[in-house]
Amino acid sequence: MKIHGRATRTIWEAADGSGEVEILDQTRLPFEVEIVRLRTLDEAVRAIADMQVRGAPLIGAAAAYGVALAMRADASEAALAVALSRLAAARPTAVNLAWGLARMKEILAPLPPEARAEAAFAEARTVADEDVETCRRIGEHGAALIRAHAAKKPAREPVNVLTHCNAGWLCAVDWGTALAPVYVAHDAGVPVHVWVDETRPRGQGAMLTAFELAQHGVPHTVIADNAGGHLMQHGQVDLCIVGTDRTTRTGDVANKIGTYLKALAAKDNGVPFHVALPGSTVDWRLKDGVAEIPIEERSAEEVTWVAGRAADGRVLRVEVASPGSPAANPAFDVTPARLVTSLITERGVCAASETGLLGLYPEQAR
Amino acid sequence: MKIHGRATRTIWEAADGSGEVEILDQTRLPFEVEIVRLRTLDEAVRAIADMQVRGAPLIGAAAAYGVALAMRADASEAALAVALSRLAAARPTAVNLAWGLARMKEILAPLPPEARAEAAFAEARTVADEDVETCRRIGEHGAALIRAHAAKKPAREPVNVLTHCNAGWLCAVDWGTALAPVYVAHDAGVPVHVWVDETRPRGQGAMLTAFELAQHGVPHTVIADNAGGHLMQHGQVDLCIVGTDRTTRTGDVANKIGTYLKALAAKDNGVPFHVALPGSTVDWRLKDGVAEIPIEERSAEEVTWVAGRAADGRVLRVEVASPGSPAANPAFDVTPARLVTSLITERGVCAASETGLLGLYPEQAR
Repeated sequence: MKIHGRATRTIWEAADGSGEVEILDQTRLPFEVEIVRLRTLDEAVRAIADMQVRGAPLIGAAAAYGVALAMRADASEAALAVALSRLAAARPTAVNLAWGLARMKEILAPLPPEARAEAAFAEARTVADEDVETCRRIGEHGAALIRAHAAKKPAREPVNVLTHCNAGWLCAVDWGTALAPVYVAHDAGVPVHVWVDETRPRGQGAMLTAFELAQHGVPHTVIADNAGGHLMQHGQVDLCIVGTDRTTRTGDVANKIGTYLKALAAKDNGVPFHVALPGSTVDWRLKDGVAEIPIEERSAEEVTWVAGRAADGRVLRVEVASPGSPAANPAFDVTPARLVTSLITERGVCAASETGLLGLYPEQAR
Repeated sequence: MKIHGRATRTIWEAADGSGEVEILDQTRLPFEVEIVRLRTLDEAVRAIADMQVRGAPLIGAAAAYGVALAMRADASEAALAVALSRLAAARPTAVNLAWGLARMKEILAPLPPEARAEAAFAEARTVADEDVETCRRIGEHGAALIRAHAAKKPAREPVNVLTHCNAGWLCAVDWGTALAPVYVAHDAGVPVHVWVDETRPRGQGAMLTAFELAQHGVPHTVIADNAGGHLMQHGQVDLCIVGTDRTTRTGDVANKIGTYLKALAAKDNGVPFHVALPGSTVDWRLKDGVAEIPIEERSAEEVTWVAGRAADGRVLRVEVASPGSPAANPAFDVTPARLVTSLITERGVCAASETGLLGLYPEQAR
């Protein structure tokens, strides 16, 4: 998608042929657009650990490139083992990180050291390109849903999409998941407007989703997470599209805390609630999301302190709760399948149910 | 309720016999507890306009005292008219402000100027005392609901109450509405713990509700507004109690934006959802809250900028959204009566319906 009018990915190989990698530093967004160069394994580990790159698909690609950078310096057996273990420890709970590393290991381990660097870059490129293609397909399938709403509205009246958190191109290599349908529709000339939940406590909606929509030229409006129900009561939302971190084989979806509340409001007001996901986020072993998906409890300070930019331009944190009061910070919640209108995958759109998912992923039947 | 261990109201007559009035400056909370002296009409108008006093019941009492301060300086016909009109303009949309002023006018207009100052203070005192008594009764009736939950739980295991925004004693003269049942139960030794929705965008929960609960010694935990649904899914909430700004005769309630989402989650999880209110907030002309209650749209900057205290102790604002992105800020939403388990009033607890309300307020039948 675009930044400053120019098509950009979140990670790419430097154009100067140096064999180095460049990323958008997401910790500086939305206040500064800064490109950081990754030259070594150390720098790749730090970029992942410090969340300069974040979002499951992007972390997978960054890990793959991290292995490639390591191989460029030293492609020995020992160096490969070190690279895999250091990258895995950078963000231990990221499922895609482990997945990306396992894939690199499988390709590289059988090769002689002298062939590893080139093979590693080729594989990292494939990981990134596959992610782009998966997201683009999610976008195509989801855009059809947006077009169906547009067809029912007066010409040029925008289709209003509500989204939560950031499941846009900044969390992937390009396109994103929940926002891919929005970009595909927008680029095809379908008028779309996005209600952006600010997504407390970390503000990924107000900070990242708003930024990427603005840069790509998609009309949008930031709202407090509290506002969505009221907007739906008053016909201001045509459909919701969110991402998911983990999906059960029965169609329950774990996503950023607060997603469940929006799904309830959508149901209460007859607004379709769609969840966009690559098939790889389905955990085929799980059948009951509320009971089986563990929810990460994060630091209370994320709730009681907020980072932002002061009038003098400095980015700093301010305390926004009564000093000394304890806070709790569950990071995700589970939306039961009964509240989900459909799942939008790279293979098509299906019902949020085991039958629906197995229709698209028959290889997972057992 | 208590501040620094001492029983305090939000507004009171100075103990030095000066005929002046003192208030807690709520714009400085929770970071500083500062008492401000009101000596003149001007100072009373400023206190209301600048929200040093806020919350419907408290604004009514402050307006009554403002008239009294004006009469102390000049009790002429002209001065009375000026006082009424200047106070009315201090916060034009506050219903209780108009109500408090109409009541003062009715008492004072027929009196000779020399009798007005004393009568005005007496009436302001009555307004304040009546509010305290109304809230205390709401507390008694609501505490019975909390006790019923306590009786079903293992001994000493706290009853978990979730509340939204600030409907505590800081918005009234004492006790508050939604929190009055919590204070009555707590003071009676019933173990209570309150989940405090931070209440974006203005943060009245994290800033004011958490402060007043902490000062009175009531266990509580601040959460992002997004978290309540997840907590209810996992049995962490026994009941919800919120306040209301306006209630229809059919039991629909307008309250701070986001209330509706919590009511939906409560319904979905079988958690009772109670609304506490003085009968004076019922608008007996209205039958359909979603259709008939106009919702105030406030400044977008309340969403995109957040006030808090920096590490160096300065209170300042920081930008928390992508610069240039538009924001919308509906300040209230309407929770339909079908989602409300009961209304807790100064006359008792009733169903959220016309039949329920008329059972307690038969004088409103028509």
